[in-house]
Amino acid sequence: MTNMLTQRLSEQNYIQQLSIDCVIFGYRARQLSVLVPKLRFKSDFWALPSGFIDQDEDIDVAAQRILRERTGIDDNYLAQFHVTGKASRNGKAFLDELIRSNPEFGDGNPAVFQNQQPGLSDYDWFTRRFVSIGYYALVDINRVVPRKNELDQSMEWYDIKALPPLIMDHTAIVAKAFETLRLTLDQKGDAFNLLPETFTMKEVQELYETLLAKSFARNNFQKKILDMNVLERLEKKYTGAANKAPYLYRLPKETIQ
Amino acid sequence: MTNMLTQRLSEQNYIQQLSIDCVIFGYRARQLSVLVPKLRFKSDFWALPSGFIDQDEDIDVAAQRILRERTGIDDNYLAQFHVTGKASRNGKAFLDELIRSNPEFGDGNPAVFQNQQPGLSDYDWFTRRFVSIGYYALVDINRVVPRKNELDQSMEWYDIKALPPLIMDHTAIVAKAFETLRLTLDQKGDAFNLLPETFTMKEVQELYETLLAKSFARNNFQKKILDMNVLERLEKKYTGAANKAPYLYRLPKETIQ
Repeated sequence: MTNMLTQRLSEQNYIQQLSIDCVIFGYRARQLSVLVPKLRFKSDFWALPSGFIDQDEDIDVAAQRILRERTGIDDNYLAQFHVTGKASRNGKAFLDELIRSNPEFGDGNPAVFQNQQPGLSDYDWFTRRFVSIGYYALVDINRVVPRKNELDQSMEWYDIKALPPLIMDHTAIVAKAFETLRLTLDQKGDAFNLLPETFTMKEVQELYETLLAKSFARNNFQKKILDMNVLERLEKKYTGAANKAPYLYRLPKETIQ
Repeated sequence: MTNMLTQRLSEQNYIQQLSIDCVIFGYRARQLSVLVPKLRFKSDFWALPSGFIDQDEDIDVAAQRILRERTGIDDNYLAQFHVTGKASRNGKAFLDELIRSNPEFGDGNPAVFQNQQPGLSDYDWFTRRFVSIGYYALVDINRVVPRKNELDQSMEWYDIKALPPLIMDHTAIVAKAFETLRLTLDQKGDAFNLLPETFTMKEVQELYETLLAKSFARNNFQKKILDMNVLERLEKKYTGAANKAPYLYRLPKETIQ
């Protein structure tokens, strides 16, 4: 445990000063949620699932790896949405709090992080400026088994309207992810990845109404969605009722984009 | 001249393995164009305007600096669109060709680039893997004075439908920029930045028809644009004709986003 961070960094050959931050969106019953770990800090702090990029790893592959470790799902639907790159952005406050809260990381002394890597101490490694590539994942909330890592106390879903305090600029990163998702809702079918494998048009409409915070007329909405031409129509959902059984739809398998 | 590259790199303290590539879009008379420098190579090669990020510089500020040097305009409208980050992506072929074509960079010998910076030679610096942040700029083509730099033979506008061969993955980067521009056309008013300071609704319609490669009914189109609620209506354009003088519109000053 003691040198978990050190070990992680020294085992890998990561690109320096570049990180990936992930916003994991899930949806159920007219509520959009974000999966956020709570840090093992003395004070209450939450942070987006994050990680680094190995020298031999495509950035999309790195993002998928980071997400797989947190959701247990191999094929998370991912989209890049924004790079956050203020010159003042670094992990110093994060690392200070980590060390203060976890005295086993060198009796509260950052020195334990020093000189573990040739040329650059781990403490330096973390406290330098970081540019962050943001990815959002759209997952079927029912399939996810949240997995906390060594830095986390817990990992839970939070309603996007009631997020806990996030470290650094992570709250702004979530807002940007949500804005991007909303902005492309009419052009791209990626929001369908938030639904179970098969779904009715009513469920699609509820999803869109939740994401856009407005309501739609049923017929117009159905036409708009079908005009996007991305859904596959399956058999009717058998409900036992004699008529009015709704069609089921599904999204053909999507890949990272 | 000899050590121009070396000098540029050693004078600055850039973030390593991270670059910015810019797609500069201009528009005139139903034609969307991209401003692309032709490299001072023996073979015919074009490359997107690119640059690096100083340790003390926000990434948006770096992109604006790179663009200002190429367009002569201080307040280019910029938008991030995509990060390109394949593990196999590096500048080796570019540097080899640069040296082959410009023997004054060390008699064709890459050794001239070596040992100019402590710890890492300039040759290494260029040939390592690079992650590229893509920005597109939307400019008023009439205001731009294209400026080539020391690596360029020329710098010209090219119709996006007839781009010359670009190095590395730059053609794909242009395609992604264009796709992003088209995708958000109905939600964001950023395409208006391609027009002169004031413009008529007819000019907006021509622009949209060009970008989306389809035509619109005049009344519906006007309603859609005005519903976006981003344009400011000015006085009528005085044409000398007694009636039918069209209104002029303009976009309130936008900032980087």
